[in-house]
Amino acid sequence: MDTHGDAAVTAAEGKAGPDEGTAQTGATVEAAETAGTGRESIGDWAKCSADPHYRDAVVDLLGALAYGELSAFERLAEDAKLAPSLADKAALAEMASAEFHHYRLLRDRLAAVDADPEQSMRPFVEPLDSFHRMTAPADWLEGLVKAFVGDAIAADFYREVAVRLDDDTRDLVLGVMADTGHAQFAVAKVRSAIDREPRVGGRLALWGRRLMGEALSQAQRVVAERDALSNLLIGGAEVRGFDLVEVGKMFNRITEAHTKRMAALGLAS
Amino acid sequence: MDTHGDAAVTAAEGKAGPDEGTAQTGATVEAAETAGTGRESIGDWAKCSADPHYRDAVVDLLGALAYGELSAFERLAEDAKLAPSLADKAALAEMASAEFHHYRLLRDRLAAVDADPEQSMRPFVEPLDSFHRMTAPADWLEGLVKAFVGDAIAADFYREVAVRLDDDTRDLVLGVMADTGHAQFAVAKVRSAIDREPRVGGRLALWGRRLMGEALSQAQRVVAERDALSNLLIGGAEVRGFDLVEVGKMFNRITEAHTKRMAALGLAS
Repeated sequence: MDTHGDAAVTAAEGKAGPDEGTAQTGATVEAAETAGTGRESIGDWAKCSADPHYRDAVVDLLGALAYGELSAFERLAEDAKLAPSLADKAALAEMASAEFHHYRLLRDRLAAVDADPEQSMRPFVEPLDSFHRMTAPADWLEGLVKAFVGDAIAADFYREVAVRLDDDTRDLVLGVMADTGHAQFAVAKVRSAIDREPRVGGRLALWGRRLMGEALSQAQRVVAERDALSNLLIGGAEVRGFDLVEVGKMFNRITEAHTKRMAALGLAS
Repeated sequence: MDTHGDAAVTAAEGKAGPDEGTAQTGATVEAAETAGTGRESIGDWAKCSADPHYRDAVVDLLGALAYGELSAFERLAEDAKLAPSLADKAALAEMASAEFHHYRLLRDRLAAVDADPEQSMRPFVEPLDSFHRMTAPADWLEGLVKAFVGDAIAADFYREVAVRLDDDTRDLVLGVMADTGHAQFAVAKVRSAIDREPRVGGRLALWGRRLMGEALSQAQRVVAERDALSNLLIGGAEVRGFDLVEVGKMFNRITEAHTKRMAALGLAS
């Protein structure tokens, strides 16, 4: 039952460990390096938020992340019902509880910068709810794959976006991200299910593709509708021009990392 | 949105505060005093658990409490869907997250005393699931009343049972209980709903009665089926004889406290 302690360790080690090596080359490593060594700092929140465009963009971003975490909490708690055992149920509930903790950090930050958390989240309710509606797992294994894939995509996105932020917001975003990896327990379970019944792999591979596809579709919708946020995503505060190519590249890097992760899970995508 | 910090303070103060005075007289105060000043200690876990009957009873108790918390997590997360606003949803999600934390403390304790958490919870799955199935809220206000009433009944039960336990188990149980009060935000919301539309009060009063009735019914079922646990509940380790009257008295004290709390909520029960 104490999956979580070990899983977290595995996940943390996995980032640099030999097992996950293939899944971590390319896009993710590149993103991680950019985040680690960083472009040079664009300044702290006090300095950057003097620009109202920048401020709006960050409030948008925090609102999107906050509702992302709150809706993830809700879906994971719901999907925990599919668990075949109490230990499995508790593992997914643990993840849900971690997402709620993330939500609280983001909400508190919104309040701290005098933004209304509820209002900041509202534009993202419909896209995120749509995503979850379109990807409601049909069974426990689909739920596990979704938990794992969702957690990983979120971490990639946090990492991508962190490099574009002022120091204070970046610290927050990286702090929230550092607490991911709760979904690592899913890996062993999915692998052994495929070992037992290989044709499960085909179905779950399709499922993983669908998850990524729906995520991209909703993300594109947000990009189309939220100019300030999109500007921030593609080039940071100084860039005003809206460049679909840049956004596309970011999505490609995340998709590539996803593909490698699915392979690590034993699923062709 | 930051209901929780304030609510926790209110709840903590409420235990001794003037506002909640009427709701805290009688049974609850009596129970609190017994827990506070205590019967004399029956010894620590190492000493008490040498008696296999005592050990079984405590494992049963921890299993019941653990699944109680896990199923409360699940129901609160589910009921959060009924929330009319994101802030309300987050308040219930926060409560769910706190229940999960309680669950984890209890599960870890079970593991620490070499009991299998899953196996220890299993006998209580059906009674607790039945309770939640019979009391699925039809709307947000029913959900709020259930969250508040459930939290309070749980706290009363923890307090009642704590006085019957060895020092180590008592510390754990009281520690978990100290983190309740997350439901206090519900009080103001229910009160103002009744102010706006007084006939809501009649419906919610019935609902409160039903919640308590179903809780008692499932508790009686557990008492009937789990001898070791029942013995513990009525008299501590030294008592072997099974006394329905003692159990009845305990349930009466909890029911009385519930009645006073419903009145404080503006609901006749």
